Amino acid sequence: MLSWNDENTARSEPRAADAAEPVRVEDKRVINGQADINQLAPFRYPWAWEYFLKANKNHWTPVDINMSQDVHDYHHRLTDTERHVYENVLAYLTTADILAMRNIGLAVMEKMSAPELQIYQARQVYEESMHTWAYQHCIETIGLEQSEIYNRYRVVPAIHRKIALSNRRLDAVLRPDIDLTEPEALQEFLMSYLFFAAVFEGSWFYNGFSPIFSLQRRGLMKGTAEQLQYIMRDEVMHFTFGMRVVRQIMQEEGVRPDPAAVTAMWEEADEAERAYADYLLGDPILGYDADMHHEQFRFVANRRARKVGLDEPFPGARNALPWLDEQANLRKEKNFFETRVTEYQTGGALSWE
Amino acid sequence: MLSWNDENTARSEPRAADAAEPVRVEDKRVINGQADINQLAPFRYPWAWEYFLKANKNHWTPVDINMSQDVHDYHHRLTDTERHVYENVLAYLTTADILAMRNIGLAVMEKMSAPELQIYQARQVYEESMHTWAYQHCIETIGLEQSEIYNRYRVVPAIHRKIALSNRRLDAVLRPDIDLTEPEALQEFLMSYLFFAAVFEGSWFYNGFSPIFSLQRRGLMKGTAEQLQYIMRDEVMHFTFGMRVVRQIMQEEGVRPDPAAVTAMWEEADEAERAYADYLLGDPILGYDADMHHEQFRFVANRRARKVGLDEPFPGARNALPWLDEQANLRKEKNFFETRVTEYQTGGALSWE
Repeated sequence: MLSWNDENTARSEPRAADAAEPVRVEDKRVINGQADINQLAPFRYPWAWEYFLKANKNHWTPVDINMSQDVHDYHHRLTDTERHVYENVLAYLTTADILAMRNIGLAVMEKMSAPELQIYQARQVYEESMHTWAYQHCIETIGLEQSEIYNRYRVVPAIHRKIALSNRRLDAVLRPDIDLTEPEALQEFLMSYLFFAAVFEGSWFYNGFSPIFSLQRRGLMKGTAEQLQYIMRDEVMHFTFGMRVVRQIMQEEGVRPDPAAVTAMWEEADEAERAYADYLLGDPILGYDADMHHEQFRFVANRRARKVGLDEPFPGARNALPWLDEQANLRKEKNFFETRVTEYQTGGALSWE
Repeated sequence: MLSWNDENTARSEPRAADAAEPVRVEDKRVINGQADINQLAPFRYPWAWEYFLKANKNHWTPVDINMSQDVHDYHHRLTDTERHVYENVLAYLTTADILAMRNIGLAVMEKMSAPELQIYQARQVYEESMHTWAYQHCIETIGLEQSEIYNRYRVVPAIHRKIALSNRRLDAVLRPDIDLTEPEALQEFLMSYLFFAAVFEGSWFYNGFSPIFSLQRRGLMKGTAEQLQYIMRDEVMHFTFGMRVVRQIMQEEGVRPDPAAVTAMWEEADEAERAYADYLLGDPILGYDADMHHEQFRFVANRRARKVGLDEPFPGARNALPWLDEQANLRKEKNFFETRVTEYQTGGALSWE
């Protein structure tokens, strides 16, 4: 059995020298910190703890939402084109959300050296799994062929391209030997985190719900749209938190993302989104087409870039979906038409910027 | 930007050869599986999905529980000895739960090669963070000195010993170069998973709540005890799930834990728990003492060992706390004295074995 000295050699243990001193706030850092990861308080990042508390106020589950009208809509009211859009939005989102879960759970959380950051990310990882459940619930209730839907991202190039591009970013920071005290590795991690926060969740995901919201505006697939409204509310917190962490890392580590790499990131994301829009909306649906989808991506991308202090990648992009924020804003929509909001939002308004 | 071929080289991508085939159930495995991790369905482990659904039915948050009586009890009704017990139970649990979160989130989840397992573990990681919140909520409402409490595991040898011992198991499988197709690494991972499921969560944690439940039985610290009842309900699912995964790995990989290593694990755990009991309850409190605590650990450890098909480590250990299961059983207790249970248990009974 272990002797007291053996115990102090365990890697996660504090150095014997400071074994008796509580963690000092100033020793905490987002990454590369030396403070004891097992001590939550005192908080260096109280905003991260606030995110955790707010996220818990937003708790919901997919089975709480009535899907009965969607079953009827899908089989009797949607056109073939609308069914094509609906199915592929689900096929993209369900794969993308498992990827988002793996990114935070496997690549990001382990690199955080302050427990209050890991704790919000633990909630985030769970929320991604909840989203996967929501898509699964839609696929099951409507009676779509599960393995065909789940496999679509592998056989549809325009979907595969977005996932493969994201997997490349994920794999780059999943390398077991990564050392964030090393400038190149730090730059790569920063770019990956920026990509997942600003592009993957902040732009692609945010924009990815819109085709369903356009159906919802016409009274179609309202159950699915409500699921996506809850998911979107979570995602807004994910990418605003992520972009805040990115800013904090830039400040603490004295590093900036390489401008050429940032430009390449946006161009790559833009081309992939254009191809996705062309596949998804090759035939437009009433009130929504590929150009609107693509233009909205660019408009949202500019917002995200400003938020992390970067130049707008697509100057002059216009708000192609002026109805989106209102459509997506759960509390407002609920307050007008339903009474159930308090069950699901037990406090804390949410800004959509 | 990426060409189609570049994309297919990304590590998480399926091999080009099967790029068009959906995942086959028979290709899924708990570890060392080759099936596409991004495809949830078809399920190979429907029981894992059931755990996820059941865990969501058990949703609760610490702020829902009334702590006002605890503030009064702590400052005006507890004896010095009882305060010593209360504080050190919290000091141990809060560090232990952050460690539990890091174990599942950082060491275990990444090694699972079936998404339905990762998805329950995502919920589990979140539940651990919720438990950390619950302890933090108790510490804050009662007004204990936070950093002193959080630091106690480092300065109290009997607490440090349990944490250091667990950190050693965690660090052994956090090694970046670990390869579970290699027999020694697999054996080490199996032992680590067995330790965290059967000892850390299944015995130490389960047993760790009892001193507070003994106060609750006397009408003291009932808010804290209610928090611990919800935490215990989660923990029961964690270790039953963990032990099921351990059994599944043993079957799929054709491996058994080394008997000598298992014996050493139980002995080490027993000695650490004895030392903890002696420190915590050097002076007994009304109706609860160190021998009862230690004997109950052995009784519970036998249950866990049987559940994974191992010999009882402590033959003849008796149920020293016959009142524990009833005291800890939230639904029964609630149904008798309160009406709020349905809010928190929206289905799914839970066995305490």
